[in-house]
Amino acid sequence: MTDLFMQAAIAQAKKSLAEGGIPIGSVLVIDGKIVGAGHNQRVQKGSCVLHAEMDCLENAGRLTAADYRRATLYSTLSPCDMCSGTVLLYGIPKVVIGENTTFQGPEAYVQSRGVTLDIQHNAECIQLMQDFIAARPQLWFEDIGE
Amino acid sequence: MTDLFMQAAIAQAKKSLAEGGIPIGSVLVIDGKIVGAGHNQRVQKGSCVLHAEMDCLENAGRLTAADYRRATLYSTLSPCDMCSGTVLLYGIPKVVIGENTTFQGPEAYVQSRGVTLDIQHNAECIQLMQDFIAARPQLWFEDIGE
Repeated sequence: MTDLFMQAAIAQAKKSLAEGGIPIGSVLVIDGKIVGAGHNQRVQKGSCVLHAEMDCLENAGRLTAADYRRATLYSTLSPCDMCSGTVLLYGIPKVVIGENTTFQGPEAYVQSRGVTLDIQHNAECIQLMQDFIAARPQLWFEDIGE
Repeated sequence: MTDLFMQAAIAQAKKSLAEGGIPIGSVLVIDGKIVGAGHNQRVQKGSCVLHAEMDCLENAGRLTAADYRRATLYSTLSPCDMCSGTVLLYGIPKVVIGENTTFQGPEAYVQSRGVTLDIQHNAECIQLMQDFIAARPQLWFEDIGE
């Protein structure tokens, strides 16, 4: 069963898709509450830095180090080098990942820096990405710098 | 002598300082031309993701992988985990760094991934950061997740 926070991340991914964007979503959870949510903004805002995780963190606003250090970041897809680096910058201790079948960020490196990764192999997350990549491969490759 | 591109990055840092923000600046150079410039936006935009390098890349807009792969990123300060991860995501091959005395990102890791770092030990960049950290330590620590 998909937990409620991953469901919220998937809802963000679907919102992005409905807007004509890339279907990746993210939420930030602190003390059992969602404090930020976001989705990829490449199409919607013409942004090269607002991947879902970045948009989510930006929407959560300026937090203290103490906040980040008890936070969990949820993402429908394995975080890329940029988003993983942001997790490391702010010392977010745990990332829950919907899937890493269609794309895999620097998971081993992130783990070596002390971050716990929970990879859920979520079928809905995989389907969202596979359908999107088949439909709009150039947009996808642009998003991952390829 | 400070090269023209680092001078432009320093000008961005000073602009940020004059706005009440954190004095770190960045420019992106492709084929000998500045295609994007930016500075830290934590104070100005309440942003936790727009470090100078991120703001610079965002201002450069959506570029192709071929563009990034012949780009050089200039920053007045050693890029943190987030900004370094963004360099890796987009395959930017070279980063020119004003200074890494007051702060040092994951330089060895970035180099191990094939990125060339040119660290300039620029006295003006060091002075900007030392004065700023002495004046506003809490803001500085927030910016680096401490």
